[in-house]
Amino acid sequence: MKVHIIMGSKSDKHVADKAIEILEKFGVDYKVDVASAHRTPDRVREIVTNSDADVFIGIAGLSASLPGAIASYTHKPVIGVPVSGKLNLDAILSIVQMPPGIPVAAVGLDRGDNAALLAVEILALNSKDLLRRLEEYREEMKKEVGNV
Amino acid sequence: MKVHIIMGSKSDKHVADKAIEILEKFGVDYKVDVASAHRTPDRVREIVTNSDADVFIGIAGLSASLPGAIASYTHKPVIGVPVSGKLNLDAILSIVQMPPGIPVAAVGLDRGDNAALLAVEILALNSKDLLRRLEEYREEMKKEVGNV
Amino acid sequence: MKVHIIMGSKSDKHVADKAIEILEKFGVDYKVDVASAHRTPDRVREIVTNSDADVFIGIAGLSASLPGAIASYTHKPVIGVPVSGKLNLDAILSIVQMPPGIPVAAVGLDRGDNAALLAVEILALNSKDLLRRLEEYREEMKKEVGNV
Amino acid sequence: MKVHIIMGSKSDKHVADKAIEILEKFGVDYKVDVASAHRTPDRVREIVTNSDADVFIGIAGLSASLPGAIASYTHKPVIGVPVSGKLNLDAILSIVQMPPGIPVAAVGLDRGDNAALLAVEILALNSKDLLRRLEEYREEMKKEVGNV
Amino acid sequence: MKVHIIMGSKSDKHVADKAIEILEKFGVDYKVDVASAHRTPDRVREIVTNSDADVFIGIAGLSASLPGAIASYTHKPVIGVPVSGKLNLDAILSIVQMPPGIPVAAVGLDRGDNAALLAVEILALNSKDLLRRLEEYREEMKKEVGNV
Amino acid sequence: MKVHIIMGSKSDKHVADKAIEILEKFGVDYKVDVASAHRTPDRVREIVTNSDADVFIGIAGLSASLPGAIASYTHKPVIGVPVSGKLNLDAILSIVQMPPGIPVAAVGLDRGDNAALLAVEILALNSKDLLRRLEEYREEMKKEVGNV
Amino acid sequence: MKVHIIMGSKSDKHVADKAIEILEKFGVDYKVDVASAHRTPDRVREIVTNSDADVFIGIAGLSASLPGAIASYTHKPVIGVPVSGKLNLDAILSIVQMPPGIPVAAVGLDRGDNAALLAVEILALNSKDLLRRLEEYREEMKKEVGNV
Amino acid sequence: MKVHIIMGSKSDKHVADKAIEILEKFGVDYKVDVASAHRTPDRVREIVTNSDADVFIGIAGLSASLPGAIASYTHKPVIGVPVSGKLNLDAILSIVQMPPGIPVAAVGLDRGDNAALLAVEILALNSKDLLRRLEEYREEMKKEVGNV
Repeated sequence: MKVHIIMGSKSDKHVADKAIEILEKFGVDYKVDVASAHRTPDRVREIVTNSDADVFIGIAGLSASLPGAIASYTHKPVIGVPVSGKLNLDAILSIVQMPPGIPVAAVGLDRGDNAALLAVEILALNSKDLLRRLEEYREEMKKEVGNV
Repeated sequence: MKVHIIMGSKSDKHVADKAIEILEKFGVDYKVDVASAHRTPDRVREIVTNSDADVFIGIAGLSASLPGAIASYTHKPVIGVPVSGKLNLDAILSIVQMPPGIPVAAVGLDRGDNAALLAVEILALNSKDLLRRLEEYREEMKKEVGNV
Repeated sequence: MKVHIIMGSKSDKHVADKAIEILEKFGVDYKVDVASAHRTPDRVREIVTNSDADVFIGIAGLSASLPGAIASYTHKPVIGVPVSGKLNLDAILSIVQMPPGIPVAAVGLDRGDNAALLAVEILALNSKDLLRRLEEYREEMKKEVGNV
Repeated sequence: MKVHIIMGSKSDKHVADKAIEILEKFGVDYKVDVASAHRTPDRVREIVTNSDADVFIGIAGLSASLPGAIASYTHKPVIGVPVSGKLNLDAILSIVQMPPGIPVAAVGLDRGDNAALLAVEILALNSKDLLRRLEEYREEMKKEVGNV
Repeated sequence: MKVHIIMGSKSDKHVADKAIEILEKFGVDYKVDVASAHRTPDRVREIVTNSDADVFIGIAGLSASLPGAIASYTHKPVIGVPVSGKLNLDAILSIVQMPPGIPVAAVGLDRGDNAALLAVEILALNSKDLLRRLEEYREEMKKEVGNV
Repeated sequence: MKVHIIMGSKSDKHVADKAIEILEKFGVDYKVDVASAHRTPDRVREIVTNSDADVFIGIAGLSASLPGAIASYTHKPVIGVPVSGKLNLDAILSIVQMPPGIPVAAVGLDRGDNAALLAVEILALNSKDLLRRLEEYREEMKKEVGNV
Repeated sequence: MKVHIIMGSKSDKHVADKAIEILEKFGVDYKVDVASAHRTPDRVREIVTNSDADVFIGIAGLSASLPGAIASYTHKPVIGVPVSGKLNLDAILSIVQMPPGIPVAAVGLDRGDNAALLAVEILALNSKDLLRRLEEYREEMKKEVGNV
Repeated sequence: MKVHIIMGSKSDKHVADKAIEILEKFGVDYKVDVASAHRTPDRVREIVTNSDADVFIGIAGLSASLPGAIASYTHKPVIGVPVSGKLNLDAILSIVQMPPGIPVAAVGLDRGDNAALLAVEILALNSKDLLRRLEEYREEMKKEVGNV
């Protein structure tokens, strides 16, 4: 398995789905789990320490400590996706403002798609096939921007 | 030991000192540790699960996930103190906006003193001596508000 | 009575209901009042000074001074719940940013449930029965986090 | 006495001084007290209910509930001055976002001077002398805007 | 006429209506105009300089400069009401953060009712009848806070 | 005269100086005035309606209504420069969030230089000389970005 | 062609339409393109460097770098319109806070109409016909502000 | 070369230095350039399209469009570092809130060190040596958290 998606709550599924759609489009092997940094901290640790993933994607709202919790248990790159709610700044700042030593790669609000694309970019450093597909994806995307 | 103060970094010491001053004034037994939710997550878990404290105080800045991490390992009341920095809203919202099921009692920015007073109020539910001292403390405080 | 819930306006009832649901689940004796720090300040004082509650929960939106007003009349722990509105930051900051000497334990926006759980955690310091129920509650919660 | 200035803490004195300077310039009778809505709520009530002032000015920072507390005890106009600190939005929103029924007239951050001028404008509705001085003050002010 | 309500746009009518309802309840003579500080600045000046009102209420959203514009043309007390929109902080801060010398009395977001009550409080300094009605109004309000 | 710089207060001079430095570098004729939208509204109107400038630059902090006030009296392009203070968002939002019909061109916090460059770009639509100087300026600027 | 409107995504069309409506009302020649600073950067450069427009309008949401990207390729005035979304402050600040040397004229959230009016004001510096129409437009607008 | 650091201005050097210190500690080959997305857009494109780096780090403040500009020219992972200034939220939101299709990995304010560590984590996916050093680094870091 290459990418391990962990969401903090079942209610974050719509954001995970955006990541899954991208990963399937690129043919990247992935796994999805639900585990809460606050409600099931041991499960987060267990999932992360037993995972053979190359990249983790943590998805969470509110005081979104899941991506940071994942990062605290692994040396692999961790991508954090803030989920929108009543404030939005809470999830964004909780994920972006990590202390020195434990980086998390924050993407935009509800941007499960960009989290997956970032994971693909990372994996493509070691896969000519993925690199080629990324190039194709960007070309498609440029056409879609299209005209009025 | 009654109150366990955990700060996320040695640089939060000035806020912990405000809590310590109050606890010593009230004669409440306490312990202080440094443990980072992000850099030493296992140490946080170990400290919390082995602690016999009645109340925890977690002090952290930036993406301040320490109080929530403490709360994830205990049923005891956890008080969170956001430490001021370049944004301030990051630490406040990270501590206040906990998800359902795992409460943290947030106090104000750098308010180590109020965290300790809240701990004393909780412990005083079961100690006539502390209750009496709280009453005295409030009376003193009223006098200090004083006049112009 | 153990927990006294005071809301600033009848329109905060949906947040109080989340607290009530938790307290009833745990079998904790409670009372609910409506009293506004701004419209009925004497009633707030009267309710608080005549209450035999161990823990207070103050629920309010906008310039949410109710939890602080309760805290100004009692040495018992006071938990404050900001109610969401057009700004949200107004209620959160009004409740979190208490001055030194008068602590309020702030929980998240509309988190009546967490306010009640925090009250239960405080009461459980003195009740093996509540402590056992808290442990059961956390186990249930862990199962509910479940999987995708 | 015409204007009653109440500040929440001695540390708000520099903002009260701006108000005092204006009131003295206009020859308006005033009184200054220190009373905290959170630390000395009964004193706030006592001061307000025993005051014969026509206008109150409440000065406070952080969760600035003092102006609202004053307003809860009087039908007289209450002007609130937020005092700057680490966040600023906390004091501003606490004072501006009053619930329906209990108005507070908020002025800008640290604007003790404008609070006093607003009080003078209110008192001038019933004093030709003050009205004349206000006109003179504005004329002076226009000259001071001056040129480069 | 006692109170002059000026709104920046017809779309602010719902906020003006809250003020009107209060003024009619108190039997206070008022007038309503629409005039934009940005689109019809001369009309604002003309309305204000020709008005014999004792108190002005300016209602505006976005970059809400209307209350400040009114205040720039009169020595009478000016109350500003920020109207809610996509940001809210824009209207609140535009009205609260007036420079030294020209005060505006800001009330909360969409709080036309509080603006009118503040005007009544100001007028009641010189009217025993209004003072009595204010007392009655507060008593009614207290009853309405009621119970659960 | 081509560009008319109006600042709301003498204390905004450091921001006006950045604009002046650019205008002098480009040899653009300009004039500088101090006039406050709130303290000297008639002076603002008089200055604007009597000015033969092609472009106006309004510089103000706090509730920065000066650029909007200028725009309300002219059909010429008006550039607004928010001046930094304790909040910053107040001045930015007051200048950016103009209502439909009366545009202001907002530049960044304290960016008197960019205001002047924008004015030069506008004037260069009708001046080959200015256009050439703009090209030279950009080339110089590129060199200054330089290397490490 | 006089005004070149570029939007970052087809989904910004409703804001572009407000600009188009104004430009057609004033009989100003314009062109509309879709080009993303992030997805089709070369297309942005190509469109801008090959355009003979006098004024550019860039419309974008989120991290709204399109107006700045346009400005980086031209000496012509560039007007930026932030498009509303979940945060709003992201688009506003991305467009307003340009670094020294490359100005962008920011207008309000979703204010395509004001962007077009600002463009007309700029073009009117060199067209008596447009100047006359601007005067007529303002007169119409004043009438529309109307009365209650 | 493995990591290409590009900063938007020489004044961002102190943040780049934090990244350099980490990369040198890990023995990772890197290069540093200064190029502004707004002042030297062609240089950014040229640097990025001619670079053989595996990972890019873009460092910028204000409307921080540099990381996004880098990402628009490459399929390689791009890490963005917001630089602190008068607002801070401007740089953070400009970097985090990227549109769908072009991801940027945002790290915290001024966190050049975390940007470099994230780059090392990405490169370590393909280097046992770097992986070993990361493990050692974390162990050192844990010791440094230390005790009071």
